[in-house]
Amino acid sequence: MILELADFSIHPNQNAAFEAAIQRGLASVISHAKGFEGFKVNRCIENPQRYVLQIFWTTLENHTVDFRESPAFTEWRAIVGPFFASPPVVQHFELVAKSAS
Amino acid sequence: MILELADFSIHPNQNAAFEAAIQRGLASVISHAKGFEGFKVNRCIENPQRYVLQIFWTTLENHTVDFRESPAFTEWRAIVGPFFASPPVVQHFELVAKSAS
Repeated sequence: MILELADFSIHPNQNAAFEAAIQRGLASVISHAKGFEGFKVNRCIENPQRYVLQIFWTTLENHTVDFRESPAFTEWRAIVGPFFASPPVVQHFELVAKSAS
Repeated sequence: MILELADFSIHPNQNAAFEAAIQRGLASVISHAKGFEGFKVNRCIENPQRYVLQIFWTTLENHTVDFRESPAFTEWRAIVGPFFASPPVVQHFELVAKSAS
């Protein structure tokens, strides 16, 4: 399993609308993607314009090829893109270790 | 529960030593801290010098006050600090939403 970390900076004072939009996009688009295994949406305490979206994919290519080269990517960006104050920073991670709990 | 995201950039070609050190620091120091609820260590695929450490804390102050103002913080930084190529970027997050799975 691969972790996608997407770092978003949104325009100020749009938290409620962005949080509704990202949840709509996750439910209507991302959750139907091949290899999708789960998500978490996290809002930064120190900087409320910052969000980190975690998406779990079965393989790296499920995100970088299957999803990004599909029409679903355009649908997703149409939903969340208008909120972005700058281009998202997206990278992928392998789990090295975790606690038992 | 609060999520700490700590973004590390380490010196090149030290992955194995860093991964051993961070796991030793988590087991011997962090896991005994008040309010510690769990961790994940993630290695970036696109940039193998980048790691993102997730630590779950009961409250924000368990990290920012109880841990950082304790001798344990110095012990932890002595273990992982020598690997850092630049100062860590650390912020805290509240969970907005997650998938059922």
